Amino acid sequence: MVNVAVVGCGYWGPNLIRNFVSCPDTDLVWACDLDERRLEKVLSPYPVVRRTTDVKEVLSDDNVEAVAVATPVHTHFLIARACLESGKHVLVEKPLTASVAEGKELVSLSKEKDLQIMCDHTFCYTGAVRKIKEVIKTGILGEILYFDSVRINLGLFQQDVNVVWDLAPHDLSIVDFVVDKRPSHVSAHGVSHSGNNLENIAYISLGYNNSFIAHFHVNWLSPVKIRKTIVCGSEKMLVWDDLEPAEKVKIFDKGIEVKQGDREKKEQLLVSYRSGDMYAPRVSDREALSLVVKEFAQCVLENRLALTDGEAGLRVVRVLEAAQKSIKAGGATVPIDYS
Amino acid sequence: MVNVAVVGCGYWGPNLIRNFVSCPDTDLVWACDLDERRLEKVLSPYPVVRRTTDVKEVLSDDNVEAVAVATPVHTHFLIARACLESGKHVLVEKPLTASVAEGKELVSLSKEKDLQIMCDHTFCYTGAVRKIKEVIKTGILGEILYFDSVRINLGLFQQDVNVVWDLAPHDLSIVDFVVDKRPSHVSAHGVSHSGNNLENIAYISLGYNNSFIAHFHVNWLSPVKIRKTIVCGSEKMLVWDDLEPAEKVKIFDKGIEVKQGDREKKEQLLVSYRSGDMYAPRVSDREALSLVVKEFAQCVLENRLALTDGEAGLRVVRVLEAAQKSIKAGGATVPIDYS
Amino acid sequence: MVNVAVVGCGYWGPNLIRNFVSCPDTDLVWACDLDERRLEKVLSPYPVVRRTTDVKEVLSDDNVEAVAVATPVHTHFLIARACLESGKHVLVEKPLTASVAEGKELVSLSKEKDLQIMCDHTFCYTGAVRKIKEVIKTGILGEILYFDSVRINLGLFQQDVNVVWDLAPHDLSIVDFVVDKRPSHVSAHGVSHSGNNLENIAYISLGYNNSFIAHFHVNWLSPVKIRKTIVCGSEKMLVWDDLEPAEKVKIFDKGIEVKQGDREKKEQLLVSYRSGDMYAPRVSDREALSLVVKEFAQCVLENRLALTDGEAGLRVVRVLEAAQKSIKAGGATVPIDYS
Amino acid sequence: MVNVAVVGCGYWGPNLIRNFVSCPDTDLVWACDLDERRLEKVLSPYPVVRRTTDVKEVLSDDNVEAVAVATPVHTHFLIARACLESGKHVLVEKPLTASVAEGKELVSLSKEKDLQIMCDHTFCYTGAVRKIKEVIKTGILGEILYFDSVRINLGLFQQDVNVVWDLAPHDLSIVDFVVDKRPSHVSAHGVSHSGNNLENIAYISLGYNNSFIAHFHVNWLSPVKIRKTIVCGSEKMLVWDDLEPAEKVKIFDKGIEVKQGDREKKEQLLVSYRSGDMYAPRVSDREALSLVVKEFAQCVLENRLALTDGEAGLRVVRVLEAAQKSIKAGGATVPIDYS
Repeated sequence: MVNVAVVGCGYWGPNLIRNFVSCPDTDLVWACDLDERRLEKVLSPYPVVRRTTDVKEVLSDDNVEAVAVATPVHTHFLIARACLESGKHVLVEKPLTASVAEGKELVSLSKEKDLQIMCDHTFCYTGAVRKIKEVIKTGILGEILYFDSVRINLGLFQQDVNVVWDLAPHDLSIVDFVVDKRPSHVSAHGVSHSGNNLENIAYISLGYNNSFIAHFHVNWLSPVKIRKTIVCGSEKMLVWDDLEPAEKVKIFDKGIEVKQGDREKKEQLLVSYRSGDMYAPRVSDREALSLVVKEFAQCVLENRLALTDGEAGLRVVRVLEAAQKSIKAGGATVPIDYS
Repeated sequence: MVNVAVVGCGYWGPNLIRNFVSCPDTDLVWACDLDERRLEKVLSPYPVVRRTTDVKEVLSDDNVEAVAVATPVHTHFLIARACLESGKHVLVEKPLTASVAEGKELVSLSKEKDLQIMCDHTFCYTGAVRKIKEVIKTGILGEILYFDSVRINLGLFQQDVNVVWDLAPHDLSIVDFVVDKRPSHVSAHGVSHSGNNLENIAYISLGYNNSFIAHFHVNWLSPVKIRKTIVCGSEKMLVWDDLEPAEKVKIFDKGIEVKQGDREKKEQLLVSYRSGDMYAPRVSDREALSLVVKEFAQCVLENRLALTDGEAGLRVVRVLEAAQKSIKAGGATVPIDYS
Repeated sequence: MVNVAVVGCGYWGPNLIRNFVSCPDTDLVWACDLDERRLEKVLSPYPVVRRTTDVKEVLSDDNVEAVAVATPVHTHFLIARACLESGKHVLVEKPLTASVAEGKELVSLSKEKDLQIMCDHTFCYTGAVRKIKEVIKTGILGEILYFDSVRINLGLFQQDVNVVWDLAPHDLSIVDFVVDKRPSHVSAHGVSHSGNNLENIAYISLGYNNSFIAHFHVNWLSPVKIRKTIVCGSEKMLVWDDLEPAEKVKIFDKGIEVKQGDREKKEQLLVSYRSGDMYAPRVSDREALSLVVKEFAQCVLENRLALTDGEAGLRVVRVLEAAQKSIKAGGATVPIDYS
Repeated sequence: MVNVAVVGCGYWGPNLIRNFVSCPDTDLVWACDLDERRLEKVLSPYPVVRRTTDVKEVLSDDNVEAVAVATPVHTHFLIARACLESGKHVLVEKPLTASVAEGKELVSLSKEKDLQIMCDHTFCYTGAVRKIKEVIKTGILGEILYFDSVRINLGLFQQDVNVVWDLAPHDLSIVDFVVDKRPSHVSAHGVSHSGNNLENIAYISLGYNNSFIAHFHVNWLSPVKIRKTIVCGSEKMLVWDDLEPAEKVKIFDKGIEVKQGDREKKEQLLVSYRSGDMYAPRVSDREALSLVVKEFAQCVLENRLALTDGEAGLRVVRVLEAAQKSIKAGGATVPIDYS
């Protein structure tokens, strides 16, 4: 059993609280938020959980072993660092931090203190993404050729971050989770239409040191809601439509075969198509966040790295920072620094 | 009545032939193809049309006033130039030419000879695109904020051009046709998976001298077929799904309203959403190519520029050439040269 | 303000409780259920609401003006009658009663006692159905020609009623609500596949004293979920797809025109088609049940019949009973008795 | 090689002609139609085919071994009878005849003359229906519980037959083809909205001597086009959506499990749900009619019954006639006479 505190009870905090309460491996002992009224409202079904508006109270309680941080992005670093310095394991909302420097310091500090830092890349714990990872691992897709994702809708303009920092962490964490490849550079384009210099539409291209590419369209200003991902393999192709009520993941037995054409015309290759069955494996509909809190508890109990550990969170931030730089440089290609 | 010849009877030529035959303003007098057997087969329902494997025979016939060129892209320039030099008006398949230099020479020659040169940007003549242009012109969408298009499918790997030169002319000609803006630079990413250095997937971002952006995903290697375009305006938003059997064009009364928030926090803007009715205007299902040949006949008869004239074709080639350069330079931003 | 009690805290009761609590016109004073543990759980967020396992306690409280009955169908009659006899207004879950005789007695008793009896035909209060009623009222659909509904899914096999008594009340109450016509006879077909003689699939045809027809497919054993209704008018046609996340109601400007053909062949009529725009009016997404409880409060306060009053509930039961009889008679046509 | 004639060159005849010409087992020698201009137009690509407006000329040609009849329904009987009497095998458009009496006479005459009579139930030769039959035969669906089909659209009001005789033959021939069961009675409801007493919407329920049921909704006056069939089995469930461009047939590993509940409450059965993978087998997209003409040629050459022989055609007519009777009797249940 891990004694846990939740810091930040805004949009996501209440979900963390509900899942920590129902997880058999965790005991929620504290919740903290600057807004006392919100705190009271969120905790009304959980009278035994202690509450405070001062995070220091949480950190000074030796009974607390681990803290989940669900505050605005720009505060992640200071709070998570304070947690680690107080000897608490920490689960941080995505994106891990607001900069690579911050992320590196957190990861390094966690190692130094021999504490676990996990990033709440919730999508990696959905039935769909776990199934995609499993399918890719079996090798039936063949070599993975590209990853394409569209995540657009009308709504939820954020006040403090642009659409890249808000939505792209989902896709970046997913591609990092399911594909065993690290991007080497990024090029991104984005525009703000709300007059506050925060982009509400962006296109992000990830380059790798081979022919694999990944591309993301993230957008708060679309008349239609789309959440569709293609993972194209050389043998089979996978499509994940997260808005489908059932059959979210489909595997198509489709592909091309390339044959050498006429000798005389060396450059000519004959491409033929293959189109076979389609198969939609059952996908677990268990709430992803229940698996996040379970993984957090277990990585604390077993003192092992989490599936989506601080390094994973940091890798996402490395891309976000480079993408941001690229947007501001008009789409220039920006290398991703792994130093 | 315009006397017309068709040069090239491969994939598209037979459609041109059928439409020239049925168009009341044109008289098809010649068809030409290097492959005599194909020529015979294609012309079997039209016994009165003369046929030849030698384009010079067509060009030396004074009876021919206009020629439609439906040959491989790299031959467009030489054939179209020969047509103009022989005093014939010319309709050229998309893309107009294989390079900007070629395109410029054709446009300049057509002016010099006082002949019409038209580019067969077929999509601009579909009911859907004509409706989109009409809707934008009325102003009901407000300021156009972005144009996003996805045109992907499994199939039709070309032997001589990559997916950019094959599919992007559709989208580039459409955005050129419906939006009164000219892109200033382009950034594109693409990969070849067939081993012949011809990209089969590409992402193209067009930059403009304002906050408008356009983005295209063209792809020959997708397990699912998608042909979806979003034209987002500040007042209303339009979605065109070309695979819908009916209601291809939908206009959403959706948008955001941005208000100045708290004075103290100047940077904070409050964004609220507006979501109203949706409206799908009836769209003509008349075959686009019948309108292409009619427009060609009329621009010849009236000696006026075609709706999709040589300049329009050239503008598309300018972007294609820059996009190609960008892909080969790893996505670097390439300015579009309008000199 | 109306003082209300809820009897029955199973599947639907908690929703009634939540809405009575938040409705400004009602004050929830009692909740009753035979299962004490369920009662405690359901009421935990509402400590001030009194609770009992004995409905008599509720009925003997003079402070209670109105009761909502959300118990199993076969108990509706006895509980609702007791409510009316105790001088309470009553809101009854659909279907109103398990038989026409019971329904008639309740309606008659409510008149005698000058109390309101309302049936909770929740769907009639959804934004979609209210919009459909409004559209029909304007007359733009022309004469209503037919009503077709498919409501199928895998799941929720009931233990006490068949699929007709479970799902068809939705469709029967809707058609009763939006179309100003009363069916004269019914023919229904159904089968039980679970071995308990409770049909899990049924087709119901309603006949009217004119050419209008209505048909319903209700089904607990379908691999796919469908909730689609067509309301076809002579001028326009409406489709309601309740599973669409947006644009649930679509109005198609489609129809036929019938012209007299050749005089010689009197029987020949020329039918031509008309296909114009489609329009999807914005539909309110306000929770239907909040409008049900509001309507209940207001019909009590104003002492007027509810929009879906006891007679409406009874009309639905008349059809259900006749449909049941028809199924057991192998699909024989059964007249609907309005005596 | 079978020498074939086609009688009737209206809507379907040209398709038969094209397929007989390209089938390696048949030689098209004659085509016949009352309308000489139509005949000329249809035959223009086939100069060697003889043409006549007088069917007697075809029947008196000893060179003709088999005749395909694609004339209006009410003429099927006389023409097909004349063919058989002239010693020709015969392929008849669906529905086989306009009455059971006619159908019985044709079938009986064909036996007497030792000639093949085949009915062109085209849908039985589509890749989708052949796959459905194959899937059912393997037994993986378990016991077939019901068959539900919706075939609706706006359009093609026929002048001589109602929607039942026009569209239901498709569904009736399919259910006859894939399910090894014969209906015992039928109940149907229909209405005419065009003023000519020909129903344009109908619902047909087939009863069998067990718990299996089949139901069809056929409709010429629907704002949306739907062609969806559910074949529900006790182990798996199949959905065929003929409008899907790909993945037309889907097999869902879904079902219920029924367990005896509490002994005390004998009537209570516990129903639980099972929901697993979905699988869409590749379906051949070969033109169905090419397989129809091939089957016709082979049943003639091998002197064996066709897959969809006269008896199959007659079974469909038996249901159509009973359904028609039921509609005119207001939906009364009409037994199907197999005498």
